[in-house]
Amino acid sequence: MVFNVAIVGPGLVGGALIEQLAAHAQSAGFARLPITVVGLINSKKMALANTAYTAADLSQWQTALLGDSAQTADLTRFADTLAGLKGATAIVDCTSSDAIAALYPSWLTRGLHIVTPNKKGFSGDMSLFREIGRLSSSPLGPAVYHEATVGAGLPVLSTLNDLVRTGDRIIKIEGIFSGTLSYLFNNFSAPGATQSFSACVAEAKANGYTEPDPRDDLNGMDVARKVTILGRVAGLDIGTDTLPVENIVPEPLRAVSTADEFMQRLPEFDQHFSKLNTDALQAGSVLRYVGFVDGVGGQSSVKLARYPLDHPFASLKGSDNIIAFTTERFPNPLIIQGAGAGAAVTAFGIFSDLIKIAERYGSGLADPKF
Amino acid sequence: MVFNVAIVGPGLVGGALIEQLAAHAQSAGFARLPITVVGLINSKKMALANTAYTAADLSQWQTALLGDSAQTADLTRFADTLAGLKGATAIVDCTSSDAIAALYPSWLTRGLHIVTPNKKGFSGDMSLFREIGRLSSSPLGPAVYHEATVGAGLPVLSTLNDLVRTGDRIIKIEGIFSGTLSYLFNNFSAPGATQSFSACVAEAKANGYTEPDPRDDLNGMDVARKVTILGRVAGLDIGTDTLPVENIVPEPLRAVSTADEFMQRLPEFDQHFSKLNTDALQAGSVLRYVGFVDGVGGQSSVKLARYPLDHPFASLKGSDNIIAFTTERFPNPLIIQGAGAGAAVTAFGIFSDLIKIAERYGSGLADPKF
Repeated sequence: MVFNVAIVGPGLVGGALIEQLAAHAQSAGFARLPITVVGLINSKKMALANTAYTAADLSQWQTALLGDSAQTADLTRFADTLAGLKGATAIVDCTSSDAIAALYPSWLTRGLHIVTPNKKGFSGDMSLFREIGRLSSSPLGPAVYHEATVGAGLPVLSTLNDLVRTGDRIIKIEGIFSGTLSYLFNNFSAPGATQSFSACVAEAKANGYTEPDPRDDLNGMDVARKVTILGRVAGLDIGTDTLPVENIVPEPLRAVSTADEFMQRLPEFDQHFSKLNTDALQAGSVLRYVGFVDGVGGQSSVKLARYPLDHPFASLKGSDNIIAFTTERFPNPLIIQGAGAGAAVTAFGIFSDLIKIAERYGSGLADPKF
Repeated sequence: MVFNVAIVGPGLVGGALIEQLAAHAQSAGFARLPITVVGLINSKKMALANTAYTAADLSQWQTALLGDSAQTADLTRFADTLAGLKGATAIVDCTSSDAIAALYPSWLTRGLHIVTPNKKGFSGDMSLFREIGRLSSSPLGPAVYHEATVGAGLPVLSTLNDLVRTGDRIIKIEGIFSGTLSYLFNNFSAPGATQSFSACVAEAKANGYTEPDPRDDLNGMDVARKVTILGRVAGLDIGTDTLPVENIVPEPLRAVSTADEFMQRLPEFDQHFSKLNTDALQAGSVLRYVGFVDGVGGQSSVKLARYPLDHPFASLKGSDNIIAFTTERFPNPLIIQGAGAGAAVTAFGIFSDLIKIAERYGSGLADPKF
């Protein structure tokens, strides 16, 4: 049997996925899946399968995209070709594009499975989310998996899905969903920490932990998208347009035109953040930037909140994510913690989803553990 | 399409599963699975499907087992009947019996799927483990899922399976796998705690957190079985017969004949435990009883160990389990924490496994989240 995979937007994450698939193709024994990469496309070029590319030489794929044999990118022809292949075929969307997410319904209609870390199809228009759901809810029809949209490879959405589908009642989901904001507040708000807020942001930026403009992290929109996805998977009708989101970019700096100017002026607000922090520490707490899904009271939000020192959120390290599910069956929350960003762990989330599709569609999967 | 479920040993866990399946059968919309309970068997009696029992009146099942229509238990005839049914059929083994686990190969040979919280088939003879694996490794053949053998409903084995199958390298797995020993040491070994060890054991016993004879918890064998399962899923050739297990039952009390006498004499050893605890606390640490899978160095073990106060194991509460996976992709470990024992969460783990089988075998499953 055959399980085909095609990658849209093969950058860092797509590259890590190709590496993992290549290592897998060279592995031995029961565990090996018959996964074949059959296409890559970026905004300019595309490469489609020919006999030269097999699962055994995946490294050729990325160079193929740059070589003379690459064709001009044409998403319609790309999808047409994939839909015509034998076996099950999954498109992996590694972009963060609204325009690509808008194509999912057309792909599903042609029987193509979708796996993606792209949040846009699940946190944007409710109508698109519902359309994607409708088209992937037939038992033998195409599937959509998007584990890596929240917490990268951490088993967050699979766990939430299991809870929901077995009839547990989701009371709340609370978490630190941004690696950037985790790193920032783990360093800034800890007993004994002395660095100013602006210095913490500058350090995070220098280490590559922030967006090019750190305001894209500090405005909370990335967390709002993740809260929206979790809420919708839990059955709530929520969206980023109505969710209360605490934007911690100081008001006067929101209209500043460049990231450089923003960074230059941020120290003007160190006293503001320092006071918030001191107040929290004096109360035996630390500051954490969290997303909160209210499963029962309609009070979902994204905000800077205080947690006591013995709370699991307070002892978080580095840029880890942490997610706590409080449910009827888990009144003491079920907690998942670990790296929630990075190419290797995001690719891991995608690969795990691909395996689930391979299992569901009987593509010759064997159990590796025996 | 039809997905049949039969339960062997329907006690507390089986009862909770039946409750969850009954609630599910009455739920509406996309999420509802076509699961039908078709049989129950205990050590004395059995009830097999007839037209009176449908998914809509699962509560009848348990009384049916006690009523006049119940037949004398006959596992051979039970399995024969199940193997003759249309659609996919899964046996849920809710016993902790070696003898039942030894039947798995015969069930698999007949195409019956298996879901179980029973550790015996996966932590006993390596030959049985391998035979179960061989018979469930064909892509379209029967499947075996046993999430609830470690950490009940916590997504421990599914996560480990995902890591292994996508080619991550398991460096170590470390965890508190016993709810009893978690509760005991969370209370006994904490800054400021004053209760003696024997008083902590007595309190745990009075609250129903221990086995009838607490030595069955303190000897570490339950944890050893879980470490064996995790190690084997990670590809190691380990077993409870060779694993170093620290039995914390004081030597002179191991041969004592009754649980009562053991409890009566345990205070004689309070000073021993108190010294261990004081030494740990003076070093800024607490005592925790842990299982340890060494993925690279062959030093897997079960032991009483010290953890510094800011370690996630030190701040554990109640009787929660916690499991930390350190891998090549997660050098900062991926951590899962929450209730790892109890009927409702164990049934949740079983139900999640049943859904995975239903998905793989195309039994009319729809995605609930849209």
